[in-house]
Amino acid sequence: MKWCRVQIGERISYGLVEDDEIVEVDGDPFADHRVGRARHPLQRVKLLPPIMPRVLYAAGPNYRGHLEGMAKRRGEPPRYPARPEPKLRSVNAIIGTEDEIVVPKESTGAVQPEGQLAVVIGKKARNVSRDEALDCVLGYSIGNDVSQREWQKTDRTLFRAKNCDTFKPFGPFVVTGLDPAKLRIIVRHNKTVWEDFSSADQIWDTATWLHEMSKTATLHPGDVLWMGTQGADGDMVPGDVIEIEISGIGVLRNYVVAER
Amino acid sequence: MKWCRVQIGERISYGLVEDDEIVEVDGDPFADHRVGRARHPLQRVKLLPPIMPRVLYAAGPNYRGHLEGMAKRRGEPPRYPARPEPKLRSVNAIIGTEDEIVVPKESTGAVQPEGQLAVVIGKKARNVSRDEALDCVLGYSIGNDVSQREWQKTDRTLFRAKNCDTFKPFGPFVVTGLDPAKLRIIVRHNKTVWEDFSSADQIWDTATWLHEMSKTATLHPGDVLWMGTQGADGDMVPGDVIEIEISGIGVLRNYVVAER
Repeated sequence: MKWCRVQIGERISYGLVEDDEIVEVDGDPFADHRVGRARHPLQRVKLLPPIMPRVLYAAGPNYRGHLEGMAKRRGEPPRYPARPEPKLRSVNAIIGTEDEIVVPKESTGAVQPEGQLAVVIGKKARNVSRDEALDCVLGYSIGNDVSQREWQKTDRTLFRAKNCDTFKPFGPFVVTGLDPAKLRIIVRHNKTVWEDFSSADQIWDTATWLHEMSKTATLHPGDVLWMGTQGADGDMVPGDVIEIEISGIGVLRNYVVAER
Repeated sequence: MKWCRVQIGERISYGLVEDDEIVEVDGDPFADHRVGRARHPLQRVKLLPPIMPRVLYAAGPNYRGHLEGMAKRRGEPPRYPARPEPKLRSVNAIIGTEDEIVVPKESTGAVQPEGQLAVVIGKKARNVSRDEALDCVLGYSIGNDVSQREWQKTDRTLFRAKNCDTFKPFGPFVVTGLDPAKLRIIVRHNKTVWEDFSSADQIWDTATWLHEMSKTATLHPGDVLWMGTQGADGDMVPGDVIEIEISGIGVLRNYVVAER
């Protein structure tokens, strides 16, 4: 199933994507719901972030390539993490596909994309085993962990570097039934491929992250975990179009503009 | 006004505290609401966290005493922050007054309280001036930023140290019309005073935090900012009672237990 959330006039509704159409759903994917009758051409609806996360976790660094690339940029040897430890991101920064990434007036440094697999929790879980961890997942989506690299280097916290308004594009769909270890992730900048990597190259896989996290924190329906990125290259400037594509999910497309 | 949120049977409702009673409110403090007729004795209702934050920010380090105490504990010289930079906390860790702080099985290190003034945003604000920043505040409450110090020292992120289930007691009330620079904050451990300090001793005051944060991130109704703590002492163990009192707001009381 391919879940989405759409705005139709004043109304916000969950929906299922079937070919080129969206079928509206009564209810939400986390509880009882009923497939309705209203259908809309996919090209004619405004797609919202497919869910609004309750808590947004970020798994990075979770690819050796990214960790080594960022260390090289800082002129330091890479330090590999000993265990999976997520950070938090602000849900206020989330936007949907086709929305604008707004570079704030305050920013003078490089702004870069990070294409990431997004894991959407569907069921409550605490102390879940590695073997059963994927049973609490509703499905998979796409995140772009937009980052201002100057602030990431100089600030004490990632507040400005990662959590400016619009810095967390998310969507367009949440797809069920995928194997999260076999997905191809492509980052395209103005149609040029900047990154092309596999989720198989993660340092820790989705099940390991959920197992470890659930030892001290309950996973709740609507929590989302972004799984880190391989690439650490390329500056985006106003006028650019940035796309993250993941096989079996779709394309998350956003437009870079300057704050007015 | 003194806002609360209560559970009455299956129903969850906002309320206003008047003397020893709670008056139920139709709606919520962030939008149109109407004071109802249902009244309940304060002692007889289950108080919930007064709001469930959309995003929970933490301002620390924001008192010289805490920063210097934590540095001494690490055997390092104190490093004073150059500017106000919040971190994020998980809203999944929030509990209300009278709820249990559960020390997870995974934990073998010291678990400590941090009494903090909590600022609840009531109106949307972006690029708000320092002079006008407090106009976007709904009111003030109390937070206990429970921290596991071993993980805080050894881990790459604060995920386990600060965001275990139940590690974020919050409440009991949100009080409007207070001066956030003139509040007395007391931390009591089994009736013994561990800390007694004034919000006047903050490195940056509430208005400065909101002004700075709003340069890159919109403040939304329901966002909450915890303002840091002065003290950094004292281990809590199962069986302990911990109270945070702030003048004009009330007492946030929680019971420490071990995970079963």
